Amino acid sequence: MPEISPFDVSPWGIGWSGWEPSRQARRESVFSLSNGHIGWRGTLDEGDPCETPGAYLNGLFEHHPMPYAEDGYGYPEHGETVVNAPDGKIIRLLVDDEPFDIREGRLESHEQQLDFRAGTLRRDVRWTSPSGATVRVESVRLVSLTHRAIAAIDYRVTALSGPIDITVLSEIVADEPLPDVHPDERVMEPLRHPYEPIDRVVTKTGATLVHRTKRSRIGVAVAMEHAISGAASSVETEAWEDEARTTVTTRLAAGDSIRVVKFVGHEWSDDLTDAALRDRVEAAVATAVRLGWEGMAREQRAYLDDFWDAADVELEGDTQLQQAVRFALFQVLQSAARADLRSIPGKGLTGPGYEGHTFWDAETFVLPVLTYTAPEAAAHALRWRHSTLDTARERAQQLHLDGAAFPWRTISGRECSGYWPAGTVAFHINADIAAAVTRHVRATGDEEFERDVGLEILVETARLWVSLGYVDAGGVFHIDGITGPDEYSALVDDNTFTNLAAQRNLRGAADAARRHNARARELGVRDDEIGRWEIIADAIALPYDEERRVHQQAAGYTDLERWDFEATSPEQYPLQNHFPYFDLYRKQVLKQADLVLALQLFHEAFTTEETARAFAYYEELTVRDSSLSASTQSVVAAWVGQSELAIEYLTEAATIDLDDLRDDVDDGLHIAALGGVWTAVVSGLGGMKDGPNGLEFCPRLTAPITRLAFGIRIGGRMLRVDVSGDTASYTLSEGAPLPIRHFGAAVELRAGKPTRLPIPPAPDPGPRPSQPKGRSPQEVRAAKGD
Amino acid sequence: MPEISPFDVSPWGIGWSGWEPSRQARRESVFSLSNGHIGWRGTLDEGDPCETPGAYLNGLFEHHPMPYAEDGYGYPEHGETVVNAPDGKIIRLLVDDEPFDIREGRLESHEQQLDFRAGTLRRDVRWTSPSGATVRVESVRLVSLTHRAIAAIDYRVTALSGPIDITVLSEIVADEPLPDVHPDERVMEPLRHPYEPIDRVVTKTGATLVHRTKRSRIGVAVAMEHAISGAASSVETEAWEDEARTTVTTRLAAGDSIRVVKFVGHEWSDDLTDAALRDRVEAAVATAVRLGWEGMAREQRAYLDDFWDAADVELEGDTQLQQAVRFALFQVLQSAARADLRSIPGKGLTGPGYEGHTFWDAETFVLPVLTYTAPEAAAHALRWRHSTLDTARERAQQLHLDGAAFPWRTISGRECSGYWPAGTVAFHINADIAAAVTRHVRATGDEEFERDVGLEILVETARLWVSLGYVDAGGVFHIDGITGPDEYSALVDDNTFTNLAAQRNLRGAADAARRHNARARELGVRDDEIGRWEIIADAIALPYDEERRVHQQAAGYTDLERWDFEATSPEQYPLQNHFPYFDLYRKQVLKQADLVLALQLFHEAFTTEETARAFAYYEELTVRDSSLSASTQSVVAAWVGQSELAIEYLTEAATIDLDDLRDDVDDGLHIAALGGVWTAVVSGLGGMKDGPNGLEFCPRLTAPITRLAFGIRIGGRMLRVDVSGDTASYTLSEGAPLPIRHFGAAVELRAGKPTRLPIPPAPDPGPRPSQPKGRSPQEVRAAKGD
Repeated sequence: MPEISPFDVSPWGIGWSGWEPSRQARRESVFSLSNGHIGWRGTLDEGDPCETPGAYLNGLFEHHPMPYAEDGYGYPEHGETVVNAPDGKIIRLLVDDEPFDIREGRLESHEQQLDFRAGTLRRDVRWTSPSGATVRVESVRLVSLTHRAIAAIDYRVTALSGPIDITVLSEIVADEPLPDVHPDERVMEPLRHPYEPIDRVVTKTGATLVHRTKRSRIGVAVAMEHAISGAASSVETEAWEDEARTTVTTRLAAGDSIRVVKFVGHEWSDDLTDAALRDRVEAAVATAVRLGWEGMAREQRAYLDDFWDAADVELEGDTQLQQAVRFALFQVLQSAARADLRSIPGKGLTGPGYEGHTFWDAETFVLPVLTYTAPEAAAHALRWRHSTLDTARERAQQLHLDGAAFPWRTISGRECSGYWPAGTVAFHINADIAAAVTRHVRATGDEEFERDVGLEILVETARLWVSLGYVDAGGVFHIDGITGPDEYSALVDDNTFTNLAAQRNLRGAADAARRHNARARELGVRDDEIGRWEIIADAIALPYDEERRVHQQAAGYTDLERWDFEATSPEQYPLQNHFPYFDLYRKQVLKQADLVLALQLFHEAFTTEETARAFAYYEELTVRDSSLSASTQSVVAAWVGQSELAIEYLTEAATIDLDDLRDDVDDGLHIAALGGVWTAVVSGLGGMKDGPNGLEFCPRLTAPITRLAFGIRIGGRMLRVDVSGDTASYTLSEGAPLPIRHFGAAVELRAGKPTRLPIPPAPDPGPRPSQPKGRSPQEVRAAKGD
Repeated sequence: MPEISPFDVSPWGIGWSGWEPSRQARRESVFSLSNGHIGWRGTLDEGDPCETPGAYLNGLFEHHPMPYAEDGYGYPEHGETVVNAPDGKIIRLLVDDEPFDIREGRLESHEQQLDFRAGTLRRDVRWTSPSGATVRVESVRLVSLTHRAIAAIDYRVTALSGPIDITVLSEIVADEPLPDVHPDERVMEPLRHPYEPIDRVVTKTGATLVHRTKRSRIGVAVAMEHAISGAASSVETEAWEDEARTTVTTRLAAGDSIRVVKFVGHEWSDDLTDAALRDRVEAAVATAVRLGWEGMAREQRAYLDDFWDAADVELEGDTQLQQAVRFALFQVLQSAARADLRSIPGKGLTGPGYEGHTFWDAETFVLPVLTYTAPEAAAHALRWRHSTLDTARERAQQLHLDGAAFPWRTISGRECSGYWPAGTVAFHINADIAAAVTRHVRATGDEEFERDVGLEILVETARLWVSLGYVDAGGVFHIDGITGPDEYSALVDDNTFTNLAAQRNLRGAADAARRHNARARELGVRDDEIGRWEIIADAIALPYDEERRVHQQAAGYTDLERWDFEATSPEQYPLQNHFPYFDLYRKQVLKQADLVLALQLFHEAFTTEETARAFAYYEELTVRDSSLSASTQSVVAAWVGQSELAIEYLTEAATIDLDDLRDDVDDGLHIAALGGVWTAVVSGLGGMKDGPNGLEFCPRLTAPITRLAFGIRIGGRMLRVDVSGDTASYTLSEGAPLPIRHFGAAVELRAGKPTRLPIPPAPDPGPRPSQPKGRSPQEVRAAKGD
């Protein structure tokens, strides 16, 4: 069992000293750099040792057949899997003709440091070769947040003994192997060597490689150029089909250095010509060379300063939690900052997990953070969904439904789910996207976005719901036979989360169609259709157990047999690896928050007492085999006054990746769980609720937190909330007054002047809810620490 | 669209004159010969033209990987698919050096005739070669019902012009290609060339080939020997790895003949040595040679005379139906007669459909016929299930259940279902097997079988049910989240069919354990376990819709949305090919009888009025996309007095294969549907009910049937029932008196003396139930005739 937290604790970065072979993959994931377009895992510069090379371009994938033991109507025929892009981050080094390899010779010191403010990954190594030459290698990487096609490395070698012959081999390597992301050879085969080489260009100090994927026919151009300072005796570049290499040689006296700055450009397209791709990537690299390393680094810093100005979360009282929360925010930003019209995959661009697919968690866990901290990035992700509407309409048609049916998992927008009970029928994805649209419009006030992008999504998803459900003889609208968020339930009737989400979707569509009537008419929306949406929204079934006085996750849920938690041993988690689906599906056991997520996202539908009762009820059933659960449980725990539990769940969410709580960080970070961390802080501790009733804050500090401050972007302005002692202070940056509620009371915030308001004493929350045997946050963490 | 019934109508056989290329595969299926151990499709002797070569040995299969787009706990890793056995039925012919090929030259006449009393397939061809030589080829095939390893061909060539040079090439061909039974290349690959050659032996007039499957490691030996009469000028035999060939040459004057009798032996085993296999097959062939063709044919006739004595069904008034019913009985017998400790596959040994797997239909639709007409064959099929108990116990353990979980589809006994919602969770298979056991014991009175075979099956399946369900707070026993017989429903709670079947299973286990107390104790059964079975059986949930006054197929079923039959076009059937599963599952639409099958099999649980109401209710929802539905609907239609509908459904069931109603006979016959034909006649028109309340008959004749007679074997005796006019006559062959009920009244039948009883007038059945738009029996047949 790995230990907890090997990382150095500091508020604005995360470092790791030394080097252990077994932790290599975890390092690579945690130290990933990305701008949402390019992703570079935190591999060692010299390429070896390496667990998962990991250079990704958002949207670059290869097709593969989808195998089924028994086929069925509407099953997707082709899957999509992320493949490694030609990898430009490799800089090999020869020291007196011996390869620099930290497994050989003597590793004097080794540090890696991810800097949240600089947006860089720094590395500093001192190493003595087997034959006794000692060098220091310092590298700083960045993946530019301002030039989306560019990543760069500032690489410096200093001779600490000498003289030493130094050879720097800076490379682009295509066809790096993908790990076995699927057990089926038929799936893996096309992924092993996805490229055909198209073109290569070589200059003295750089090269461009152009490839095309064999099945998905996506063209990829990667170019590198180098700026060399210090005394280089020779520079030359060669290229082959799948590799380009610039070789710099020199002889360093002790204390002398050579510095190689490498600029790497990336372009891909499924419709540009090879020549156009090459021109674009070379132009991007030329711009980067002109700016130089210092220029790129300065822009990177400025971009992040602007981000942190609004978005920073300060948590005094727990340094480790402070670090984890900033790490989470930084990685969420990295996953999307420059994704431009592409998705936000479940793992961002930090690893091959989930085959590079995006899921509902992008809209439900990541976009709320981005909408309030980097709204342009959120808008881009939604514009990407909008761009896939034709595919979603075709899918709806195939399923004999109206409107659009967005895919459960995808890269391009086509459904890639091979297990329909937890794929095709998890229709809530459509309402999740719609909810992200309405939230974004509400938070930004961006009417143009609503008219040009949001409205069509809202209209087409509203149409889906109308055709998916039916009105019974009693006038109640039901949505039967679908799957809600919880993956230990499937094919249920009237999943409360889904029905509330559909309700908000229908109402959101009606509102937006009224506001943008001309555009709505272009989309074929007539007044009677709007009226129908509203009638159905009002008539939707919300199953409630009158006897137990609790909302049901789905019709009949609370009558199901309870899972036998007492008979389940710790080794049998995650349950899905040890029990058949049917047994999980038919019993009361939750992989993740489902009704509790409804309590959070659709809070206006529940009274405080209903929320508390439901939270307590479902706590007893939730085993958190999903990384998406803890943050939601943290938020609702905070709302119902279970502050100790809220902090425990927040801590779990914040350390899922850093402490590798689920033993799977090697495949990449859990971007949605990281998004949930912000929500757990801002919406849980900070008590922020948004929704049809406007913006409300009910912040409460809880030990060990002594001060909490966070910021959101709202309607083009910044609002910072600072909570300490029994006072909350609200500061609006500029512009028109902002109406909010503070613990239910309406307040109008005015720009510039902080509004300080007292925090009322917390009511008695009652007894602490219990979790299934062995599944409390402390127990889960303790089991991990074994 | 093929026309209806190309076959000649005769009461004791089925013939087809002429030859049409497009009907070749259908001929091959319909003219299949089998003894349950060996299956030979009705291919042409000369091997070409041929659609599906089809030589099968029951239990001979090859492993293949099971592909999944997304994996899950408990999914089977390996599939099993029937492969062609080395094919000994090929006899090629050269006529003056030109190959005898009915596509070439001039086909003067061509007849094939399956004879239900002789148990042979006769063929008679007159053909003129392209160069003008005219021959008559007569062949008679049999697959021996008395020597299970032997098939034989009596092959005769007569020169009708002459002199003609004749060369007869009699072959065994291994590695005949299997059609693409699966769309996945990864599945097909190991099935294409499944054998490695092991050994071959050649004599002057015969040869033996020994092979072994590459993955499943099953050894197969096929041997041939020839008896030649008429003037052969030379005989010689050669063999290669995958072929053996005996060549007979002669020169015939006009009017002269040559006759070659070919005896083919078959053995397979997964534990015998290659030498043992060879010895056995050669010994079997030697016996056959000693008996000679005439001896074999005599034994075949005697076996069938004995079968028909008891089993024949006479239906006067509709010659075509008479033929179809005898065809059905003949093919059911062929599927199982000598299967000895092997399964009865869904297609018998008549084609590669369903990959050669056996399903619940063997126990539910085929074994009832065999138990009452060929009880030894039924006993063997149940002994086979018993022999797989260890595998079923392992499967139960994997699923965290007690007792045994029999596979949904299999050849060897291992679960091969790749779609768990209609596989793993169709747990009723276990009660279906148990029901076949209790029925068999009741019908045969075979206490030794019950003690040695039946009891353990009953006990282990009873244990399964106890662990699968749970008792709710109100003391009701529920079985949630499973799938019943209808394949357009899945993952339902308290499926009425399953619950009634489980109830009978539990009670049957309790009864048998009490009767065989010592053996039960060896199986670990204690008195309190027996008591628990009975308590649970009494407490089982039977969902009933109080408002609609109808039994529910499953809890909540009658509240589901109805399928929109009006909006469904004829081309959209079968629905599963045009709609996604989730939409079928969540609506009221039935692929096949489910609750109605419960009305039939568990009739004691329903009053006459409940039966009539439920039948009418579910008729409106049943689209009969399954071949297993019509016979059940026929039985219950007859019971509720809807005699016209009963005849229509009987006709549909009886012609599914002969008229190829489902366009899939090419892959093999629907053995279970053929079994249902007998049940529709005997249990429907004949009104026979068996079950815990004993044996009852309520026979009624319906136009066009003017007389109905059928026989059953019961307790070692034969009972014949003969119905004409308004009288039923019961004749018991021998032995102790037999208590039955005749229209509810207890009667004791005594051996020898017919008991003639009047048939009471039929009560008014009320209006004819309606079917979904376009799905009445007439409409389905009319659509086919287009």
